[in-house]
Amino acid sequence: MSTDDTRDAIMVATYEALCEEGYSDLTAQSIADRTDRSKSALFYHYDSREALVADFIEYLIEGFDARVERTREQPPLERLAAFVDWFLADPDDDELAFHTAFLELRAQAPYNDVYREKLRESDDILRTVVEDILRDGIDAGVFRAHDPESVSALLLASFDGARIRQFTLGRDEYLETVRAETVDRVLADVLAADVEFPDEASFEFPRDDRLVDDDGTTDTADSDGTTNAADDDETTDAESDTENTASNAEGDPTE
Amino acid sequence: MSTDDTRDAIMVATYEALCEEGYSDLTAQSIADRTDRSKSALFYHYDSREALVADFIEYLIEGFDARVERTREQPPLERLAAFVDWFLADPDDDELAFHTAFLELRAQAPYNDVYREKLRESDDILRTVVEDILRDGIDAGVFRAHDPESVSALLLASFDGARIRQFTLGRDEYLETVRAETVDRVLADVLAADVEFPDEASFEFPRDDRLVDDDGTTDTADSDGTTNAADDDETTDAESDTENTASNAEGDPTE
Repeated sequence: MSTDDTRDAIMVATYEALCEEGYSDLTAQSIADRTDRSKSALFYHYDSREALVADFIEYLIEGFDARVERTREQPPLERLAAFVDWFLADPDDDELAFHTAFLELRAQAPYNDVYREKLRESDDILRTVVEDILRDGIDAGVFRAHDPESVSALLLASFDGARIRQFTLGRDEYLETVRAETVDRVLADVLAADVEFPDEASFEFPRDDRLVDDDGTTDTADSDGTTNAADDDETTDAESDTENTASNAEGDPTE
Repeated sequence: MSTDDTRDAIMVATYEALCEEGYSDLTAQSIADRTDRSKSALFYHYDSREALVADFIEYLIEGFDARVERTREQPPLERLAAFVDWFLADPDDDELAFHTAFLELRAQAPYNDVYREKLRESDDILRTVVEDILRDGIDAGVFRAHDPESVSALLLASFDGARIRQFTLGRDEYLETVRAETVDRVLADVLAADVEFPDEASFEFPRDDRLVDDDGTTDTADSDGTTNAADDDETTDAESDTENTASNAEGDPTE
């Protein structure tokens, strides 16, 4: 098995262990148990649990980059709508498990410089994605002139706060209300005069195929790094997944 | 010592232990060590660590209620400005320590029904505070007609997300940017035509005197449940504290 395959196997096992056990209870043993490797083999690849978790965040970032790449040819307004839908989708049980574990991990960042550095990298990428969409929309004339950096920061803070309040409190209305108010009060301000924000995006923000199967479930046997998404839907071609099943089981993609 | 004094002593010790050790490492022993009581005496009052932590959230809620009460006579626009300043204040080290510990605790809510129930209670109160301000502002004619419940949910989600991103990533710009964008894009929409949002609030949202001294430091010896805030400033009378020192060391007040 190649080094890439080994990393994939460890990363998928880490994802599963996080979903099933949370971050606090995550051990090298629980990760090793989900691979055909021993705990000591794990430490051949990673010096510490911290190094492994940091590489896991890096792995999510790489996956997120690849997923964003698949949406680049779509029009900016549709990309923004797909991003909003993806971020504020009501999580299923698997997604909730990962959101929860990832929030535990994020809560360690103030104590942990390695995590903090990786999460900053992830924040940079997430902000850049939204900024690029906003900038492309200004160029295309669908958005008015505005400061994409500031609006991107506001959108991410609102969506992140809504999602954290939703799943820690079990209050779905945060997702719906914040989406509606953001469209009415923030995006209405940003959209050009004759442009309306779509009620529903025309495509689904791609899932991380390395971690989640077509049916939204996790399955290590298939998670070998290859893409197994069905690309047979005419409206989206090879650009994106089209299944109606939950797509963001990886949750906070890069954070 | 009365039951109230005992509870105060345990609650202040819990606050200090959380700030110094975080939530994950919080033990009954570390709390007992900060009081003149034994660990077994602690369990005379609380059946479990969970019951103690749940009562700690309740204690924060009670304190928050009392603090809000002290601001009721202020004009709605000033109350909103004070609330925004308080929520989005750049945290000092003590505040950061508490925010961090409290986020760890919040991250347990999806696993823990007792915490979740208490955090919901806290969410209700926080939302009601903002809704009351917005409703009073509509009645007073300083805000346009709008749905206070939805706007309150958006403001809390944005502010919460901004603060979490700020302190987990160490990126202060989230606080400043989200404040400015909220004023320009959300509140501009809500304020009546001739009303401007104040650059700075005319009073400071009161601190929790039970947990934090006038100088912003924690001191159990003085934390006997009595108010030790200086009330000698003419402009605010007995309604609120006026010190310029950091006021929200209790951080997420009720969550």
